[in-house]
Amino acid sequence: MNNLEMSDAAKPLLAGVVRHIAENVDPITEEFEASANSGDDRWSLSPRQSELLAAAQKKARDAGLWNFFLPNAETGEGLSNLDYAYIAFELGKNPLASQTLNCSAPDTGNMEVLERVGTPAQKERWLTPLLNGDIRSCFAMTEPQHASSDARNIQTSAVLEGDEWVINGEKYYISGAGDSRCKIMICMVKTSPDADTFHQQSQILVPMDTPGVEIVGPMTVFGADHAPHGHMHLRLTNVRVPKDNILLGEGRGFEISQLRLGPGRIHHCMRSIGMAEKAVDMFIARGLDRQAFGKDLIDLGKNMETLSRARIEIEAMRLMVLKAAKAMDVLGNKEARIWVSMVKAMVPEKTCQIIDQAIQIHGATGMSQWTDLPEMYAHQRTLRFADGPDEVHHAVVARAEVKAFQASNTRGR
Amino acid sequence: MNNLEMSDAAKPLLAGVVRHIAENVDPITEEFEASANSGDDRWSLSPRQSELLAAAQKKARDAGLWNFFLPNAETGEGLSNLDYAYIAFELGKNPLASQTLNCSAPDTGNMEVLERVGTPAQKERWLTPLLNGDIRSCFAMTEPQHASSDARNIQTSAVLEGDEWVINGEKYYISGAGDSRCKIMICMVKTSPDADTFHQQSQILVPMDTPGVEIVGPMTVFGADHAPHGHMHLRLTNVRVPKDNILLGEGRGFEISQLRLGPGRIHHCMRSIGMAEKAVDMFIARGLDRQAFGKDLIDLGKNMETLSRARIEIEAMRLMVLKAAKAMDVLGNKEARIWVSMVKAMVPEKTCQIIDQAIQIHGATGMSQWTDLPEMYAHQRTLRFADGPDEVHHAVVARAEVKAFQASNTRGR
Amino acid sequence: MNNLEMSDAAKPLLAGVVRHIAENVDPITEEFEASANSGDDRWSLSPRQSELLAAAQKKARDAGLWNFFLPNAETGEGLSNLDYAYIAFELGKNPLASQTLNCSAPDTGNMEVLERVGTPAQKERWLTPLLNGDIRSCFAMTEPQHASSDARNIQTSAVLEGDEWVINGEKYYISGAGDSRCKIMICMVKTSPDADTFHQQSQILVPMDTPGVEIVGPMTVFGADHAPHGHMHLRLTNVRVPKDNILLGEGRGFEISQLRLGPGRIHHCMRSIGMAEKAVDMFIARGLDRQAFGKDLIDLGKNMETLSRARIEIEAMRLMVLKAAKAMDVLGNKEARIWVSMVKAMVPEKTCQIIDQAIQIHGATGMSQWTDLPEMYAHQRTLRFADGPDEVHHAVVARAEVKAFQASNTRGR
Amino acid sequence: MNNLEMSDAAKPLLAGVVRHIAENVDPITEEFEASANSGDDRWSLSPRQSELLAAAQKKARDAGLWNFFLPNAETGEGLSNLDYAYIAFELGKNPLASQTLNCSAPDTGNMEVLERVGTPAQKERWLTPLLNGDIRSCFAMTEPQHASSDARNIQTSAVLEGDEWVINGEKYYISGAGDSRCKIMICMVKTSPDADTFHQQSQILVPMDTPGVEIVGPMTVFGADHAPHGHMHLRLTNVRVPKDNILLGEGRGFEISQLRLGPGRIHHCMRSIGMAEKAVDMFIARGLDRQAFGKDLIDLGKNMETLSRARIEIEAMRLMVLKAAKAMDVLGNKEARIWVSMVKAMVPEKTCQIIDQAIQIHGATGMSQWTDLPEMYAHQRTLRFADGPDEVHHAVVARAEVKAFQASNTRGR
Repeated sequence: MNNLEMSDAAKPLLAGVVRHIAENVDPITEEFEASANSGDDRWSLSPRQSELLAAAQKKARDAGLWNFFLPNAETGEGLSNLDYAYIAFELGKNPLASQTLNCSAPDTGNMEVLERVGTPAQKERWLTPLLNGDIRSCFAMTEPQHASSDARNIQTSAVLEGDEWVINGEKYYISGAGDSRCKIMICMVKTSPDADTFHQQSQILVPMDTPGVEIVGPMTVFGADHAPHGHMHLRLTNVRVPKDNILLGEGRGFEISQLRLGPGRIHHCMRSIGMAEKAVDMFIARGLDRQAFGKDLIDLGKNMETLSRARIEIEAMRLMVLKAAKAMDVLGNKEARIWVSMVKAMVPEKTCQIIDQAIQIHGATGMSQWTDLPEMYAHQRTLRFADGPDEVHHAVVARAEVKAFQASNTRGR
Repeated sequence: MNNLEMSDAAKPLLAGVVRHIAENVDPITEEFEASANSGDDRWSLSPRQSELLAAAQKKARDAGLWNFFLPNAETGEGLSNLDYAYIAFELGKNPLASQTLNCSAPDTGNMEVLERVGTPAQKERWLTPLLNGDIRSCFAMTEPQHASSDARNIQTSAVLEGDEWVINGEKYYISGAGDSRCKIMICMVKTSPDADTFHQQSQILVPMDTPGVEIVGPMTVFGADHAPHGHMHLRLTNVRVPKDNILLGEGRGFEISQLRLGPGRIHHCMRSIGMAEKAVDMFIARGLDRQAFGKDLIDLGKNMETLSRARIEIEAMRLMVLKAAKAMDVLGNKEARIWVSMVKAMVPEKTCQIIDQAIQIHGATGMSQWTDLPEMYAHQRTLRFADGPDEVHHAVVARAEVKAFQASNTRGR
Repeated sequence: MNNLEMSDAAKPLLAGVVRHIAENVDPITEEFEASANSGDDRWSLSPRQSELLAAAQKKARDAGLWNFFLPNAETGEGLSNLDYAYIAFELGKNPLASQTLNCSAPDTGNMEVLERVGTPAQKERWLTPLLNGDIRSCFAMTEPQHASSDARNIQTSAVLEGDEWVINGEKYYISGAGDSRCKIMICMVKTSPDADTFHQQSQILVPMDTPGVEIVGPMTVFGADHAPHGHMHLRLTNVRVPKDNILLGEGRGFEISQLRLGPGRIHHCMRSIGMAEKAVDMFIARGLDRQAFGKDLIDLGKNMETLSRARIEIEAMRLMVLKAAKAMDVLGNKEARIWVSMVKAMVPEKTCQIIDQAIQIHGATGMSQWTDLPEMYAHQRTLRFADGPDEVHHAVVARAEVKAFQASNTRGR
Repeated sequence: MNNLEMSDAAKPLLAGVVRHIAENVDPITEEFEASANSGDDRWSLSPRQSELLAAAQKKARDAGLWNFFLPNAETGEGLSNLDYAYIAFELGKNPLASQTLNCSAPDTGNMEVLERVGTPAQKERWLTPLLNGDIRSCFAMTEPQHASSDARNIQTSAVLEGDEWVINGEKYYISGAGDSRCKIMICMVKTSPDADTFHQQSQILVPMDTPGVEIVGPMTVFGADHAPHGHMHLRLTNVRVPKDNILLGEGRGFEISQLRLGPGRIHHCMRSIGMAEKAVDMFIARGLDRQAFGKDLIDLGKNMETLSRARIEIEAMRLMVLKAAKAMDVLGNKEARIWVSMVKAMVPEKTCQIIDQAIQIHGATGMSQWTDLPEMYAHQRTLRFADGPDEVHHAVVARAEVKAFQASNTRGR
C-alpha cells in the first residue's frame, strides 16, 4: 500500500506526455486562449482554435498518447490509478493539455462508463466518436431544488411510455453541456420511486439534440461563464428517448455512480496538484519580479513562510493523492472510498488557499484576466462542491474513523 | 474616544436612509439588475435602469437625503465619520443604495477633494454636476508596471508644455472609468521627478473625452467585468489638459491623497460590515431552507459554530470601524491612520471569509449568478488590494506598535 | 449601548488603581513570587509573602481602593460593569494585583452572591471576613463524572436529615480550595431530584473544616499545580451542615448561578485583555532584544505581521468586552447573555494564541519558569473550559442568531 | 523515492516491537508512572520503577529487539531510516516504550555519534555501557544568552591548558541531564574563535561527575519539570577534561552536528505521528464516553469535522515523514535536509493542534494529570523549538524553493 512509485511500464508514457505538453501544448496555449470567439459564438471553438487543437491532437495520436486513460476493453488492463496520477499532475499545469490528449472531464468518466456498462449498440453510437475525439459529452446529476450533497434528493423523473422514456426535470451545473461539440448526455433520473432508497435512480443516454432538451444558460462562477466549457443550466421537458437508452438497467443509477465517482473525484485532485504547483511558480516569479520598499516582494513580510507552507502542503497533498490512487488499485473503489474522501476534502480547499496567496502577491493583477489565477481559483472553488461538498467527505471520513475505533482500540496503520 | 454612539443629531438621517432603502431601493433592486443592458451596451444603464434610478434618486432628494456625505462648504460642518459609519453599514446591505443617494465610491472621494481644494472654476465645472448626480467620476492612481503598494512607484508623467500638461502613461484598476456617465478623472501623475520623494507627484483633472484618453478595456475580477461599474485599464497618450487643471499645485499629489485615502479606506470598511451582515442572513436563510440527511443544513456539521464565529467577528469589526471613525473625528486623519490601517487590514479579509462560508452552505448555487454572493466576494477580495494591500497596512500597524513600545513600556490604552 | 466611555465618576478610581499597581504591586511582584514556600508548605503563603501582601493591601485600603467591586449594599449602587472593565484590564497585567485589592476570583463572585442573597447571619459569619480580606473562599460546581458543559448533570447530593444537610459527592477544578486561607465553600448540590430540570439544584455554604470535606489533591494544568491557588479535587463524604446554610432556598441553585456566572465570565475576559497586552509587550521586548542572522528577531519572517494581527485582535477584543459590559449594565444579565457568550468564546481562545506567539519568539525560554508566559497560557487555556467550554458559548450565540433571523429578516444593529 | 514500503527484512522487527509493547510495556505503564518517586528523589527511578523497567528491557533483549537503531559497526549496515520510521510510529504511542528498547532520545543520537566518530577508547568507556543500557547521556548545545536558532551563536568556551580542555559557560534545555542515570554529556563548545564561522566549534565528552559541572535546576515546561527526564539548566565552571575527550578533532563540531541533527529531527517527528494517533484515539474515546444535551459529545458541534481533519493531517504527516526518511536513505542527510526541514516544520505544529483538540473535548480533565494529554502537548510544543525553531525550518524550505525556481522554471517532481 505504501509503494507509491510509478510502474516502470508507465514511465515512457509519462515522459511522452511531458514532452508533448512542452513541445506541442505550452507553445500554443497563449494563442489558443487569445483566439477564442466572443459574444454569442463563444460556446464554439473559433476556426483558429479548432485548427490548433486538431494539430496538437494529431501529434498526440501519432506519439501514441491518445486515450491512455482507458483500460483495454478485452484484457481489462490499463493504466493503474497510481500511474495515472503522475500523468495527471502534469495535465493540471496547463489548461489545454487534457483536451489535446482526449482525457478531459467529464468525457473520461463518460467513456469509462460506456466502456464498462454500455451495450454494443450504445458503444458504437457514442463511445466510438468520443474515443475519436469527434464529439464531447456531459453528465447531468445535480439539480437546483435540492441539496445535492444528498444524492437521494434527485427528482428528475423518467417514465416509461411504450418504448420511450419520457424525462422531465431540471439540472444545473452540468459541465460541458454548452460546448457546441457536446452531443450526448448521461442523465441521472428517478425511474422507480417505489423501490428502496438506493434503487430508485437510473442513468439514461440523452442526445443533446433531443426535442425538449433546453440549455437555459450558463451558471456563472464569480460572474464568469468559462465558455466554451462552463456549467450549464438545463431544462428537460417531455424529453423522449428510446427505452434502450438506459444504462445497465432500471434502478441501477447508484451502482453506475459508484463506478465513476471515485475515480472522477481523484482525477480532479490529481490535476489540482499540478495547478497548485503552477500557482507556487507564479508566486515566486512575481515575488522576484516586483520590488517595493527596496526589496523583492518575496522577501517582504511573511511571503517566504507562506511559500514554505505552500511547498509543504503540496508535497503532503501529492503523497495523499498517490496513496488514494494506490488504495483504489489495491483495495478497489469501495474499500478505498475513505481515502478518496480524504483527498477530496483536503486538496481543493488547500489548493484554493495556495492560489489565493498567489493572487495576493500579484496585487490586483492577480484577480484579472492578465493571469490564469482567477480561472484556477474559480475551478478549484467549484471542486469544493463537485462530487459532494467538503462537508460530506469530512462526514464520511469521521464516521469511518469512529467505526474503526469501535472495532479495535489498537489500530496499526 | 470610546463613546461610539451615534449623535442624536444624525439619528433622523439614519432613520431616513433606512426607510429610503426599505421603501425605495429594496423593492426595485431585482428589477434594476435584471434590466441591465447586455453586450457592448452594458457599460451604460439601460433606459429602464435610468428610469428606476432617477425615481429613487428623486425620492432621496425629496426626503433630504441627498449628498449628506459632504461637509457644509461654508461652515465646514458635516456628518462626523462616526455618524457616517452607522449610515454606511446600511448602504453596504444593498448594492444599489449608495447610487440612489449620490454617495458611491469613488465619487464621494472626488467630490470631497474638489470641495476642499478645488478652485471656484473647477468646482463650477465639475463639482456642481457631480453633486447633482448628473455625471460620475473616477480616480486614477494604480499602474500596471509597478508594485502599487509603494505609491512612490507611480510613473505616469505630466510635463508642462506652454499652458498645457501633457500626460503619458498607463493606469489600471480605475474603478468606474468605463461607465458612460463618467466624465471626469482625477489623475495622479509625476510632475516633478527632481523633487524629494514625496513631492514628485501631482493630481490633475482630466476630462474623459480628452483626446488621448483610451479605455483599453475592463480588468476583470475572477473573469467578470462588473459592468457598468468595473475597473478599467486606461492608456494616456499625449493627453493635453489646461495648466489650471492641476489640483492644489505642483508636487502636492501626496498631500491630496492623505485627504482622501483615510476616509476612503474606512468608508469601504463601513459598507463591508453591511455586506457581512447580508452574507450571514443569507447563510442562515439557506441553512434553514435546505435539508439533507434528515436535518436542516444549518444543524449539520460545524455550521452553527461557523455562524457564531461570523456573528462575533462582525460585532468586533463593527466596533473597530466605529472606533477608527471616532479616531478620525477626534484625532484627525493623520493621527488616526493606525486605526484606519487596523480596520483596513482586518475587515475585508474577514468579510471575504464570511461570504465564502455563505457560498459554501449554498452549494454551487452560491458561486452563481443566482445569488449576490459572488459579486460580494469579488468586491471584498478587491478591497484587500484597494488603497494598499493588507500587507502594507499590517506593516504600518506593526511599526507603530514597536515605536509605541520603545517610547514607553507602561502603555495604558 | 455604544457609548463605551468610562464614567467620569470612576476615572479617579482607575487612576488610583493604576498608580497602586505601579507603585505598590509591580515593585514587589518578583520578590513575592521568589519567596513562595516549597514542598508541602506551598499551599500557604510564606511569612515574607504574607508580609508583602499585607503591606500592599494596607496601601490599597488607605488609598480607598478596597472592595470597589462591590455594589453599595444600602443604595444598590456600585461600579458599573463598564467601569469595572477598564480597571480589570489593568488588573490582568499583574498576577498579584487583584489580591492586593481584594478582588480575586472566585472571592468576588462569592462576596457578590452573599451580599445579594445571604441572610444577615450568613453575611456576618462569612461576608464580613471576606470583605476584610481575612479569609478566602471557593465555589464548587464542576464534577469529574459528567460533562460539565451541561449544568444539569450535577450529581452531588444534599439530603435533609433533621436540621442538617448531608452532602455526598465529588467536585473537581475547584479553584482556590487548596489555599490555606480558604475557609468557606459555596457548593452546588442536587437537593430536589423530583423537581423540574432547572429547580433540582441548590447552593449551600460549607465551611472547609467541616468533617468529611476532603481535599484529594490539586488538578494540575500541564503538570503544574499553580499553588497556592490551584484547582482542587474534593471529596464530600457525609458532610453535615446546618439547614440554614442553604442560600436563598431549595431548588434555587440555578437562579443564583445566573447571578454570578454572567459577571464572572466577563471579569475573566476583562483581565484577559490585560494579559494579552502583557504578552504583546513581551513579544516586542524579546523581538528587539535578540538577534539572529544579522537582524532583530522581530524583523525576521512573519513576526511583524504576527504583531500587527495581535494588536488588531486585542483592540477588537477590548471593544467587545466593553460592549458586553455595557450590555450587562443596560440590559441586565439575562438579556446581555449573548454578548457575554460572544466574548467568552472569543477572548480566551485568541488570548491563548497571542500568548503562544510570544512563547514562540522567546524560544524554549518562553515555555520555562524564566517568563510568566507558561502560567499565562495555562490560565487562559483553563478559561476555555471555565464557566462553560467555548463550544457551549458558540451554541448559545448561534441559536440566538437563528432566532433573531426568524423573528425578522430586516435586522438593524 | 516514492516507494515508501517497509522492507520485508524489517517487518519481523516491527512485528516484534508491536508485540513487545502490547505484551510487555502497555501492561506496566500505568504502574510505572504511579510508582514514581516524589520530592527531591524524583530525578531517580524508584526501586519499583527500576524493577519494572529492567524486566521489560530483559524481555526486549531476549526477543532480539535491543539496540536495533544502531547500524552494524563492521558492515555499516543497519535499519534504514524508512524502516525505522514504521517502528518509531509505534514507539510514539507509549511514553515508556523507547526506554525498554534502549532507543530513547538523546541517547540514540549520542550512541550513533560515538559509534561513528569515537576512538576505540571513547567507545569502550562510554559507548559500551550506553549500549548495555547501564547509563544514560545528554547532549548540550543550546545556551540561554543567544538565539539558538542561529547555531553560530554558541559561546561556551573550551581552552586547551596543557593536556586538558577547560570549559566555561552555561547551557540550558539539556534534556535528560538531570536523570541520575545520566553519566556522560556531549558538549558543544567554542574552541577556535579565530577559525571561519563554521569551524569554531567542537564537541567534547564531559562526564557528568566532573568538578565544575553544576545542575542549576530544571527548566520547566508550562510549570512542570517532567522528572526524571526533564530539561536541565547547567553551569560549567572551569570544567577540566582530558584533551582526548574531544570528538573527531578541533573545529569539527558542526560536522558532527550534521551527523546527528538530521536523523534526530526526523526521529522526533516519527514518534510524533504515534502520539497524534494516540491523541485521536483519546478524542474519540472521550467523545463516545460522555454525553451532553442528549447526545454523545462527538456528535455535537464541529467535533466530527475536527476528527476528520485530524485523520487527514495524520495520514499526510505520516507520508511526509516516510518520504523524508526515504530521502535520507536515498540522497543522504545533506541532500535530504529540505525534506527534513519540511517535516520538522510541519509535524510538531500540527500534532500540537491535534492534541489540543483532544484536550478540548476532555474538558478541564484534558489539561490535568488524569490524562497523558498535557505531557504530550508539552512535549510536542517543545519540539517546535528543539533542533531549530519552526521559523528556521520554514526559511530553509523557502530558500530552497526559490533556488529551485531560479534554476529551472519547468520543475518536475
